[in-house]
Amino acid sequence: MKRANPMLTPKVFHPKKEELSVRRLEISDYDKGFLQLLCQLTLCPSLSKPQFQACFADLATLGDNHYVGVIEDPVSGCILASGSVLIERKFIRGGGKVGHIEDVVVDEAARRIHLGQRIVDHLVHYAKTVGCYKVILDCKPDLRGFYKKCGFVESNIQMALYF
Amino acid sequence: MKRANPMLTPKVFHPKKEELSVRRLEISDYDKGFLQLLCQLTLCPSLSKPQFQACFADLATLGDNHYVGVIEDPVSGCILASGSVLIERKFIRGGGKVGHIEDVVVDEAARRIHLGQRIVDHLVHYAKTVGCYKVILDCKPDLRGFYKKCGFVESNIQMALYF
Repeated sequence: MKRANPMLTPKVFHPKKEELSVRRLEISDYDKGFLQLLCQLTLCPSLSKPQFQACFADLATLGDNHYVGVIEDPVSGCILASGSVLIERKFIRGGGKVGHIEDVVVDEAARRIHLGQRIVDHLVHYAKTVGCYKVILDCKPDLRGFYKKCGFVESNIQMALYF
Repeated sequence: MKRANPMLTPKVFHPKKEELSVRRLEISDYDKGFLQLLCQLTLCPSLSKPQFQACFADLATLGDNHYVGVIEDPVSGCILASGSVLIERKFIRGGGKVGHIEDVVVDEAARRIHLGQRIVDHLVHYAKTVGCYKVILDCKPDLRGFYKKCGFVESNIQMALYF
């Protein structure tokens, strides 16, 4: 796991927890290490600013059906944690909605102060607010305990097909 | 598991397999037992025609980012199988896309002739065509073998939170 952004390392993490609220992703977060944070999650090749803006604009067309929440360190101005929720409209359940939580990540330097739970709680609350009847996510088995603390129960298995 | 549509039961299933191609859901499928088929999957309270049309229109705003495939019996005019794929745009993987396959169902009277695999293959092909780098789905463990036949591998666990 590499950190590509020298702005973020080395870092002294010191803000108070109560200062670390979740807000919606903004286009200016490109310059606050948002993509570098996602590199801690999986492959995240660099996007140029215009590419990022295009992706941001594409997602913005979904309106309330796609939400990315971030936590910014008020001291350093870096993004410390992030997660997204995609809202799916269905024909089942009376035209019900399901929230798909994706890409939850907390900066290595800011772990053990429950920012992950704060992000997840926020996304769950968001999904409830827009009318979802449930929220689902896929994770590695070793994160089972973390998501149980967030109120989730183990439900099914995930299958994947890579192209 | 109940069948709510007398149009669909009892039924003699006789079309040739090659006649059973997958096509995109149409608004007229409301009258062809589409919602009654979904009742075999999970709770699917009846939607009035205007409610169905509203749901259909809502999903149509997503354009190519949401696709429902169906197989219609050319003899009876009933929908025999269905499945959907939701396309998610991400910031990771260079602004990559992931297809989420959902709500795959085959009519009880039309099983064992591989319509499920035909639907899944179609949705996978669709996801590939629109540029996804992977397709994922959640299923009960006893469907693991079926999805392996469709080219999927077991990947993670699914967690759920119901409101």
